[in-house]
Amino acid sequence: MQKKKAKYYKKRTPEVIEDIRIVPLGGLGEIGKNMTLFECREDKFIIDCGLSFPDSEMFGVDLVIPDFSYVVENKDSIRGIVITHGHEDHIGSLPYLLREVNFPIYATPLTKGLIENKLSEHSLENSVTINIINPGDRLQFGCMTVVPIHVNHSIPDAVGFAIESPAGTVITTGDFKIDYTPPQGETTDLATFAEYGKKGVLAFMADSTNAERRGFSASERTVANSLQPLFERASSKRIVIATFASNIYRLQTILDLAVHYKRKVAVSGRSMVKNIQMALELGYLKVPEGVMIEADMVNKYQPEQVVLITTGSQGEPLSALARMAGGTHRQFAIGSGDFIIISATPIPGNEKMVTKVVNGLMKLGAEVIYESMYEVHVSGHAAQEELKLMLNLVKPKYFIPIHGEYKHLKKHAMLAQAAGIDEKNIVIADLGGVITVNKNEIKVDQSVQAGQIFVDGLGVGDVGSVVLRDRRHLSQDGLVVVVFTVDRATGEVLSGPDIVSRGFVYVKESEQLIGEARQKARSVLEKYRDYEYKDWMVIKSKIREQVSHVLYQRTKRSPMVLPIVMEI
Amino acid sequence: MQKKKAKYYKKRTPEVIEDIRIVPLGGLGEIGKNMTLFECREDKFIIDCGLSFPDSEMFGVDLVIPDFSYVVENKDSIRGIVITHGHEDHIGSLPYLLREVNFPIYATPLTKGLIENKLSEHSLENSVTINIINPGDRLQFGCMTVVPIHVNHSIPDAVGFAIESPAGTVITTGDFKIDYTPPQGETTDLATFAEYGKKGVLAFMADSTNAERRGFSASERTVANSLQPLFERASSKRIVIATFASNIYRLQTILDLAVHYKRKVAVSGRSMVKNIQMALELGYLKVPEGVMIEADMVNKYQPEQVVLITTGSQGEPLSALARMAGGTHRQFAIGSGDFIIISATPIPGNEKMVTKVVNGLMKLGAEVIYESMYEVHVSGHAAQEELKLMLNLVKPKYFIPIHGEYKHLKKHAMLAQAAGIDEKNIVIADLGGVITVNKNEIKVDQSVQAGQIFVDGLGVGDVGSVVLRDRRHLSQDGLVVVVFTVDRATGEVLSGPDIVSRGFVYVKESEQLIGEARQKARSVLEKYRDYEYKDWMVIKSKIREQVSHVLYQRTKRSPMVLPIVMEI
Repeated sequence: MQKKKAKYYKKRTPEVIEDIRIVPLGGLGEIGKNMTLFECREDKFIIDCGLSFPDSEMFGVDLVIPDFSYVVENKDSIRGIVITHGHEDHIGSLPYLLREVNFPIYATPLTKGLIENKLSEHSLENSVTINIINPGDRLQFGCMTVVPIHVNHSIPDAVGFAIESPAGTVITTGDFKIDYTPPQGETTDLATFAEYGKKGVLAFMADSTNAERRGFSASERTVANSLQPLFERASSKRIVIATFASNIYRLQTILDLAVHYKRKVAVSGRSMVKNIQMALELGYLKVPEGVMIEADMVNKYQPEQVVLITTGSQGEPLSALARMAGGTHRQFAIGSGDFIIISATPIPGNEKMVTKVVNGLMKLGAEVIYESMYEVHVSGHAAQEELKLMLNLVKPKYFIPIHGEYKHLKKHAMLAQAAGIDEKNIVIADLGGVITVNKNEIKVDQSVQAGQIFVDGLGVGDVGSVVLRDRRHLSQDGLVVVVFTVDRATGEVLSGPDIVSRGFVYVKESEQLIGEARQKARSVLEKYRDYEYKDWMVIKSKIREQVSHVLYQRTKRSPMVLPIVMEI
Repeated sequence: MQKKKAKYYKKRTPEVIEDIRIVPLGGLGEIGKNMTLFECREDKFIIDCGLSFPDSEMFGVDLVIPDFSYVVENKDSIRGIVITHGHEDHIGSLPYLLREVNFPIYATPLTKGLIENKLSEHSLENSVTINIINPGDRLQFGCMTVVPIHVNHSIPDAVGFAIESPAGTVITTGDFKIDYTPPQGETTDLATFAEYGKKGVLAFMADSTNAERRGFSASERTVANSLQPLFERASSKRIVIATFASNIYRLQTILDLAVHYKRKVAVSGRSMVKNIQMALELGYLKVPEGVMIEADMVNKYQPEQVVLITTGSQGEPLSALARMAGGTHRQFAIGSGDFIIISATPIPGNEKMVTKVVNGLMKLGAEVIYESMYEVHVSGHAAQEELKLMLNLVKPKYFIPIHGEYKHLKKHAMLAQAAGIDEKNIVIADLGGVITVNKNEIKVDQSVQAGQIFVDGLGVGDVGSVVLRDRRHLSQDGLVVVVFTVDRATGEVLSGPDIVSRGFVYVKESEQLIGEARQKARSVLEKYRDYEYKDWMVIKSKIREQVSHVLYQRTKRSPMVLPIVMEI
């Protein structure tokens, strides 16, 4: 009876099944450059706009940003950008996006401060509106309502978002962990996540960065506790501490310890100075008056009266700490009176740079604390038990792991299955895949343009795979130029072939080898001498082939061989 | 009275104070390429002759070997080379040394087998004598007697050495750890170290690789125990295990488990095949007949009947495992029927390559075990408590930490101080520093030529700092060639300037920029047109400067600008 009635209604006003579409433009299948579009009916908005750093194969590339083509094409229906928190991998591409299109930005106060610092580096600070949001606010983007939810992370003022749409509610965590004893503020707002879970969540997107890690992440407070004994040990020495400029919790701990041990605090490194200033102004850092001193005042104090906070915890070659280690810092000379603490774990790939700095500082006689800090590894990302807890609270119908390489996403998917979500309701998507979700299904059956754009100097997107392939080739075996001048009319070789090489061999000791290459090029030219019609493309390619062959035979190396013909 | 007598004797036969000189040619201030000379009176011998792998700044370099100049100069007084164990960083440079000079080699049986494999790759197997040594043997090198002492390491048949000389006894550990439950053989021969300690040791040289690590290293047996549950879990799947080809203990564990679970074992990867064959022949690996099968037989068995042992545990791009992950392996197609175990921790710097392989294998549907292996981190090098134990047993007068970067040597020196050795009796030396030790003092007051030589293809030493600097430059921003032809007599420009670039920008989209560079080069040439005497060096340098400037202004990049003049 009931059934019949339903059928009857259906006939008269067929049910409209509303979709919400989720389009990841960054952060899937990779770590970094997080960016996701949400679309419902005619409305769109963006969460985050981050960058990533080049890997070792991306020769000469400074930064990697998302491909914005799809955003630019759809700019008229995009209502704004909301930001989860102020790390580079979530805000770093904003200047590049906002050069092309202009949307209002929505961010929590500290995140706003960090974005403003970033935009001012690109002289964009006056052309963009940044609206402050707080957990519990309700932002209306057309048919979608976006609600920030407080989460813990390695930076204060981080939020996830609930997206209430005609299709249902989607929740995304942003980067998060669960810290029951955060150094400042509250624990991740589990109650709100649970409340949504009780009401019913269509799809859940959660941070997979640490999906490989068992157990529960340690509280940021454990780091605070580990620094105090080091201040005690430093006693009569000057303390130099290197850490991340955005690590507000760590910075507050250092300020508190400095006050306790009656030391003045100076700051070195541009990004560190800017961030500390901003965080002090906004009240995210607190320090009594008279504690902070200018860096150029440091040498007027006794060593035991000073703490110097500096950049360079990753061994970055141009950072303040690296310059101190190399003895080339303008203001600070390191010696046996220094107690140096590197308060950050090296990011994979940076170990050798950090080691170089540590070796340098030690050779100058300083005491350097680095490895004991590694033991207290505190991550800003939820480990497996936290991820399972969150899945349990949110109880989504569909699950989309985000923020991670394939292996992280896959692990997170397996956790979700273990937590009771049906395998077919879990989607591991690719960048540009349009994830369409409604109450009946989740599917990825379309895709939009997405990928990585390289920033090199002022150039955005002018370095692509061909340029990188050439840089790679040049880096491995260098270059051999074969140049000769010909008569345009007769094709006669007037000069050369000459050989110029760079990055191939030490030329003075390889005259014979270079001579053989020249001889080989000459013999190719000889061979074609009497051809009436000379196709220089063909001849150049022959020269490339033959000279490469000779060089490889003799050296087992394959330099780039670049034949150049000058016509007169 | 006694005093007077002594004085009297001294006058008549002045006491001869004998020296022993220790000359490190590798392994100090660096990890790898271990090599040390010992000299007493007119006799010399060498311990180890290893290589190291290039760091990320050594573009295109294949291997790094020690500078052998001092060895070649002194070849007539060198009595032989003794080897501690068969790892690359202790034997890898032998083929390069033995090409120049020929000394008898002394090594334990497994080490001998590994050296023979290595020499045969260089077709040197017939030109070198390798003598087998065993712990307790007494090798006579002129006035010095060298006694191998058994130690534990991540490879069997490792030894340290006691060097008994007229100056006193020097002990060196080689790479070592203390494993009370080694999977094969005995614990490090603590009794012999202690015996020498009781008799009196002049100087002690010990492995600093893990001087940063607290506590005691875990036994190799813990790894064995962690593999068994994985074989259990793999049940109906094919097992593929990647590990180091020289890790005999790990290989034996895998063979034992294969036998237990009634699986056949196949081997993939050239170095793996060679090493397993050799170790089976020498009896360092044991397996019942019929268990080993050829790799091309694997596909004839059911998945659950096979274990495939392969190279590629570090994600090396050309390794068998990497080719499987990329779907390009000739023999093995990976799919959901595969259970893959990467049984090795990534060496710092290799994490990204390993991750790429893991992602690839997972995308093909395989179950991949990698991170749980990381948890069982078993190092082959002694941690702090072991180092202190050894210092306590050997009780040397002088201490020389070896095998490590400065930070490791420094930590080890601090441990030695804590263990009661006087700070002034500890020497942290540099490569090439001649450490002279006698019963009264230890000093470094001379030095010999030492350093790193780069091997690139067939070239040994023809890539130096200039070539590397050029490769680095080319890798970052590519190359711009500015080429023109001039009349030798008049200096008139007959053709060009033309611009050819590689690895700089995507040329098609940058025609305007390239045009500006050409224009700038032309204007420099114009400026010098009416000079009677044209110094092309000066003009080329002006072109380089001006073109670089234009390109930097426009792109904030600094490609290598290479002006070439062709004269007719």
